[in-house]
Amino acid sequence: MKKPIIAVYGLIKDRQLEELKSIAQEYDVKTKSDIKEADYSLIQIVYGWDQNLTDKLTDNQLSSLKWIQKDTAGLDAIPLDIRESDNVLISNMSGIHAVPISENVIGYILGSARGIFSSVESKDYKKWKKQEITKEIFSLKDKKILIFGTGKIGQRIAKVSRFHEMHTFGVNSNGREIEFFEKVYDPKEVSKIIDSIDFVVNTMPRTPQTINLFNKNFFNKMKRESHFINVGRGESVNENDLVYALDNKIIRSAYIDVAEVEPIPESSSLWGAKNLVITPHTSGIVEHFRESTFPIFKENLISFLTTGSLKLNQYNRQKGY
Amino acid sequence: MKKPIIAVYGLIKDRQLEELKSIAQEYDVKTKSDIKEADYSLIQIVYGWDQNLTDKLTDNQLSSLKWIQKDTAGLDAIPLDIRESDNVLISNMSGIHAVPISENVIGYILGSARGIFSSVESKDYKKWKKQEITKEIFSLKDKKILIFGTGKIGQRIAKVSRFHEMHTFGVNSNGREIEFFEKVYDPKEVSKIIDSIDFVVNTMPRTPQTINLFNKNFFNKMKRESHFINVGRGESVNENDLVYALDNKIIRSAYIDVAEVEPIPESSSLWGAKNLVITPHTSGIVEHFRESTFPIFKENLISFLTTGSLKLNQYNRQKGY
Repeated sequence: MKKPIIAVYGLIKDRQLEELKSIAQEYDVKTKSDIKEADYSLIQIVYGWDQNLTDKLTDNQLSSLKWIQKDTAGLDAIPLDIRESDNVLISNMSGIHAVPISENVIGYILGSARGIFSSVESKDYKKWKKQEITKEIFSLKDKKILIFGTGKIGQRIAKVSRFHEMHTFGVNSNGREIEFFEKVYDPKEVSKIIDSIDFVVNTMPRTPQTINLFNKNFFNKMKRESHFINVGRGESVNENDLVYALDNKIIRSAYIDVAEVEPIPESSSLWGAKNLVITPHTSGIVEHFRESTFPIFKENLISFLTTGSLKLNQYNRQKGY
Repeated sequence: MKKPIIAVYGLIKDRQLEELKSIAQEYDVKTKSDIKEADYSLIQIVYGWDQNLTDKLTDNQLSSLKWIQKDTAGLDAIPLDIRESDNVLISNMSGIHAVPISENVIGYILGSARGIFSSVESKDYKKWKKQEITKEIFSLKDKKILIFGTGKIGQRIAKVSRFHEMHTFGVNSNGREIEFFEKVYDPKEVSKIIDSIDFVVNTMPRTPQTINLFNKNFFNKMKRESHFINVGRGESVNENDLVYALDNKIIRSAYIDVAEVEPIPESSSLWGAKNLVITPHTSGIVEHFRESTFPIFKENLISFLTTGSLKLNQYNRQKGY
């Protein structure tokens, strides 16, 4: 009888692949390029994911699939019906992006607060705009930040914000208290405080509740001279409304690492929006990526082989992440 | 007999001026616009400084001067001969700029590390440069920062760098250990470690020892792909050498808040240098400036009136700052 297969679609080092083989001797460990048509029905475990696997799943060819260990935090690539079924375990790399994403967010905030982005732009004109830039400048102490999503990424942003003596507020599904947040609100309570907030940060995944959440109505409630940051998902923001809010100075500036369509097409009005900084979905980039992700896969694999369950970052069907 | 005068040249609020008058009832408190020609010889205390006072000093018209409370950290505006005499007490606002300057420095570092400045530049071309920008990106953890100057500004930068899990090294006149620095070097020892450093930051004042310190010879010793930051004084950097080092990729990027000539003239080669971010001497800008500075002046004034000596930020003639 043929061995079941561990299919490795995510980035992995040769040394790590050898380690997998020695841990899971009852399995054939195959990388994407080694997988043949006859192998799909033998795949029990997948590390990573791709569109080809989605197609095979749709065709019912992944009949032995038991566990998907995603190689990133996001699970968008995995079809919703399998995420909602009880037949397949799913885990992700939640957590490994918390530090780099928080670095981006504080980088946006400091670049804005200290007039650095304005200075970068004025370099093209060879202008020493001391007067104009001085007017924009502030320190972070006592500024208020409202972070949508209080998971690992939101918590890390709150922790750094606290270090800079900001007041940290959060939003999660039921307003439960979370470390590093002065206060956490239920989504229904946000309208009570939104007009006092200096920085709004979205870290939430794509779920039915988060689509189009940051729209004209939301931006209109924000404080004038406030700032909006999106490191969650592009679909949470109504991009036309964001461009309108920026160009009409309804808010002061915005920073987006994600967009509805990526890469953002050259024709998009986002490129021309005033005081908008766009980073190309790079906030979660981890140096030495495979050194960060492999230990999580390995620990889950050992747990799966010995107990049938996962130890780290298992997807929660109820919460949707 | 006429009362001695406290001459207020620095920014002050009306309420603060009234407070001064009630503290120093033996004095006439006059703002710059109230000072008449006959008043100069009665000035005992000056808050702030300007070129006109330098002229009067040179003409020996400030014959009663006992104490200058400068309204900024820098003392460059005050003539050297008076700084080196024992006849006049001098104090400054050292410390109030530590937080804002450290915010700028970490803003430069994060903007660089996370590819945000490159993203800002590529927005002009409407390009989603994910591949190129991903290659530049890193996290701060385990990166090495070498801070020239271990005073309040240097210490604050070291503290924030530690929060981001960087390795912090310092340089001061004799290599004495200072809080928040893993190790502090004597200037003579710098060449031993400079080629391992990711970020070099200058926070030092202008003294004979610091002029032209960061020159071709220094940049050549720095690590390829490293970064240079100047929030000290423009004269410490040889600007032609810096432009050369950037354009020839001897170092990766630089961030300067100060220049030899400010405003930087349109003809300067700095404006065209590659990977150079220029901020217009704004790193020390403090919001609510007068709320930060007045308490220092007030505490020193009370001390001066009761004991004849100063309590805070007295200028040290030996050290030169």
